[in-house]
Amino acid sequence: MTKRVSIFPLGGMDEIGKNMYVIEYENEMVVIDCGRKFADEEHPGVDSLIPDIRYLMENKEKVKGIFITHGHEDHIGALPYVLPRLNVPVYGAPLTIGLVRSTLQEFRLLRGAQLKEVNERSYFRFDCLSVSFFRTTHSIPDSLGIVVHTPEGAVVHTGDFKFDLTPVGPTLDFSDIVKVGKRGVLALLSDSTNSERTGSTPSEETVGTSIEKLFRKTRGRIFFSTFASNVYRLQQVVETAHLYGRKLAILGFSMEKAFRISESLGHLKIPENLIIDAKDLPKYKAEKVVVLCTGSQGEPRAALSRIATGAHPTIQVQPGDTVILSSSPIPGNTRRIYKTINRLFRAGAEVIHGSQVDIHASGHGSQHDQQMMLRLIRPRYFIPIHGEYRMLVTHAKLAEQTGVKPENIFILDNGETVHLTRRKGIKKGRVPTDLTVVDKNGIEENFSVVLQDRKRLSENGLVMVVLAVNRKTLEVKAGPDIITRGFVYVRESEELIQAMKREVQQLLNELRQNNGKEPMQWKAEIIWHLNRFLSKKIQRHPLIFPVISYL
Amino acid sequence: MTKRVSIFPLGGMDEIGKNMYVIEYENEMVVIDCGRKFADEEHPGVDSLIPDIRYLMENKEKVKGIFITHGHEDHIGALPYVLPRLNVPVYGAPLTIGLVRSTLQEFRLLRGAQLKEVNERSYFRFDCLSVSFFRTTHSIPDSLGIVVHTPEGAVVHTGDFKFDLTPVGPTLDFSDIVKVGKRGVLALLSDSTNSERTGSTPSEETVGTSIEKLFRKTRGRIFFSTFASNVYRLQQVVETAHLYGRKLAILGFSMEKAFRISESLGHLKIPENLIIDAKDLPKYKAEKVVVLCTGSQGEPRAALSRIATGAHPTIQVQPGDTVILSSSPIPGNTRRIYKTINRLFRAGAEVIHGSQVDIHASGHGSQHDQQMMLRLIRPRYFIPIHGEYRMLVTHAKLAEQTGVKPENIFILDNGETVHLTRRKGIKKGRVPTDLTVVDKNGIEENFSVVLQDRKRLSENGLVMVVLAVNRKTLEVKAGPDIITRGFVYVRESEELIQAMKREVQQLLNELRQNNGKEPMQWKAEIIWHLNRFLSKKIQRHPLIFPVISYL
Repeated sequence: MTKRVSIFPLGGMDEIGKNMYVIEYENEMVVIDCGRKFADEEHPGVDSLIPDIRYLMENKEKVKGIFITHGHEDHIGALPYVLPRLNVPVYGAPLTIGLVRSTLQEFRLLRGAQLKEVNERSYFRFDCLSVSFFRTTHSIPDSLGIVVHTPEGAVVHTGDFKFDLTPVGPTLDFSDIVKVGKRGVLALLSDSTNSERTGSTPSEETVGTSIEKLFRKTRGRIFFSTFASNVYRLQQVVETAHLYGRKLAILGFSMEKAFRISESLGHLKIPENLIIDAKDLPKYKAEKVVVLCTGSQGEPRAALSRIATGAHPTIQVQPGDTVILSSSPIPGNTRRIYKTINRLFRAGAEVIHGSQVDIHASGHGSQHDQQMMLRLIRPRYFIPIHGEYRMLVTHAKLAEQTGVKPENIFILDNGETVHLTRRKGIKKGRVPTDLTVVDKNGIEENFSVVLQDRKRLSENGLVMVVLAVNRKTLEVKAGPDIITRGFVYVRESEELIQAMKREVQQLLNELRQNNGKEPMQWKAEIIWHLNRFLSKKIQRHPLIFPVISYL
Repeated sequence: MTKRVSIFPLGGMDEIGKNMYVIEYENEMVVIDCGRKFADEEHPGVDSLIPDIRYLMENKEKVKGIFITHGHEDHIGALPYVLPRLNVPVYGAPLTIGLVRSTLQEFRLLRGAQLKEVNERSYFRFDCLSVSFFRTTHSIPDSLGIVVHTPEGAVVHTGDFKFDLTPVGPTLDFSDIVKVGKRGVLALLSDSTNSERTGSTPSEETVGTSIEKLFRKTRGRIFFSTFASNVYRLQQVVETAHLYGRKLAILGFSMEKAFRISESLGHLKIPENLIIDAKDLPKYKAEKVVVLCTGSQGEPRAALSRIATGAHPTIQVQPGDTVILSSSPIPGNTRRIYKTINRLFRAGAEVIHGSQVDIHASGHGSQHDQQMMLRLIRPRYFIPIHGEYRMLVTHAKLAEQTGVKPENIFILDNGETVHLTRRKGIKKGRVPTDLTVVDKNGIEENFSVVLQDRKRLSENGLVMVVLAVNRKTLEVKAGPDIITRGFVYVRESEELIQAMKREVQQLLNELRQNNGKEPMQWKAEIIWHLNRFLSKKIQRHPLIFPVISYL
């Protein structure tokens, strides 16, 4: 078999979240990112989803390391679940590693972890593969693009990026990116999040101007909620609070953590005596404080949501307060964000949200940024990553416009593999990727089965048929009793339940008389009959569950 | 007690959907609208919610009629469920009544229904109350505002409206609205949907321009999806198809119905030989057809969704097709709309959606329209209706800006009642409003109980403990067996299930030895012990369900 570069995503395709991309060559694999995805209403009772790493575990010795582009949860969040099963070195810029270290500490997994700090001048050589980096601008400091050098040419992974020409943090050095492009790039994997947006994404600086305007005209307390990881946004709030003589209280676990780590690394510069303890808030006049808090996505356990529902132990929102939500809703969160906003309105607060005011700028480049990256990198093959299917397709079209040949563009699903050489690229084969969920208790694979039952239970409820049968005589010693949950309101459905009972009784009589059926088949018969009965009578399909005790 | 006007909503407050507002004076009640709300993920397995009309049923003889502002589902959709229990006259403009008639026919409820057509010159006098109408512009023809004349002054209900100055249908006569305002208005109830949008809502005409542009440049087949009730949008598609020599196929039950009824009433003008049967589509070249279909909100059973999933019997989307979604997502539908869009992209279609192109204009007025209405009507009291809480509050502020006194503005919840006289307005008392759901089988009240169980089942699954016990000796004759659904993946949790079994067995031994507990208390004991056990061991809280057969 000819030597070739294989690339496959284990997460991040046709979804936003749980990013993981693998570049394989001969006996070496480089893994890029290791993210977590927050579960939505499609996965009731589930916290997060992570990439299915079974293929990596089966090829443990090949995996050279996990290279992290930046410190967002959808790029680092699966590490606490992955590292115990695949303990390989983790490479990332200082802030990224700082956040990873802190998370691993919370999970008591720090001991034994191999964390390696890198920067845009780092270079790692393995057998055939080597890895280097270039700096990008995104909504978190220390964001990197990653270059995997292979004998067939470089594979470039952009990470998440936009071209912010007036960033709050360090400026971008285009010559670094041009240098990458000049060396001859085999394939580009690029961030597709905003491929449906025309033009270029506004600079973080524009948000600063809006924050300044809002702070200038607001009289009462200000609650400011944003992603804790958006350190530039935090820096702008810090500066504006200082400018208007307001003290700053920090609320929420991840917000406190972001402040601690970013300040220690010099990404966040905080004037002396600005920060106060949240419990000291009542000592200050309303117009002299800002509360910076988590919860801009309506996360039920975050500070803002608990304040909105009145569940926060010390802080309440009251008339005169202004709440600023500096974020845009991640699809799927819209409804719960509006719920939070409605509650804040009920409490009498003024709420600033949405697009009336430019109070948020995305960290992801729009069409202009994406085409700029394509022009700078000039890849032979293009693989749009990090986006729902529609975003990937739209990004593919943008690539075509910049001159990438249509047959050299590959839209992959999670697990799908593309094999590349300088001369040929083909999509072939797939690596297994099943639904993998995590919660406080660890990992659960094959979760689709559990979810199917949950879905049916939640949509149709449950009907149990309980009876006790003598194993030998097949005499029914107790029941049949019918018990329902989540099916119909019981008090009003007594009649229906009696009818179901009669139905089962009649069936049991027949079964005993015919005597042809094994008792073990009774369950199937009961399910089949009741299903038909309920479908006919009320067009519903609850989970029917015969429980037979054999005596 | 002084005579006063009482106003209470039975639906439509802090929500979009199931509108119903009641104006009561002495022994008379006028009901405005009778809408249905589509259930979301908060109500798994439920089709729709409707207003709780128990109060109206208890006061049947007082209800003079249901007056409908316009023919949208959230204003007429509950009639098939309400009329069988409250058979009062239904008043509405011709298209509204046409749609109501058609729906009642589907439900076989037409016989006995008292449907009364009205127009802007109609006038109905009851004892103390009388009702008149004024024409408005909205996204469906024949939209009316309703005036309920009371001895204390007029109560004006706007219905849904925007001020469309270049409408596709008949133009607005401002003098009619001014006349209403001049007579002295006690209270205004006004549409709050777009109170968070600045400026005025664009005219339907702007959408026509975009449709024309898209049709001009598109070469392949066009699938055009919009709300079936937006007859003006349909008219513009009809005209543009005709202009570009494309035939028009109509797909989807409600789309066909809208065409039939609107054409017969003269709201839709269709050139001869334009419409073709969907099954004849293959006879025409791709660039010579438009398919107008339902499903712009990603509704799973609508035409577009079935086409996208490949579940439509005759029509598939293929490369070269362009799909236009001419609508904006109703919050809560976002995710499933994007699912449909992703699927269409997978099938190779070009999809036009969202705000890149002005392919949709809201039917609801923005801040400028809302303040215009306030200036024209000049009410003493103001009640923002038809909106989530945040929209109601924002609308209230807009009213204040136009000079309504803050103490004369009432933000109500469903069921909350405000009592008004010329001199005084107070909020006092409430009418019962519980969750009322409907499906093919009719109405179910008190559905909250069922939903609570469904939610717990869907988030944590179910653990059943099955045993058979001798009623007298309390000897366990079979079990305990542990059965789970939607809990953990069974193959991997054998150990956990064995541990639960041991836990229950030990408990049963204790219970039998102590002998102090009644067998009926065993269930509670099992639930309590297993709950504690699972909470400690894996921090989960499934619905625990002991099933004991007594022999």
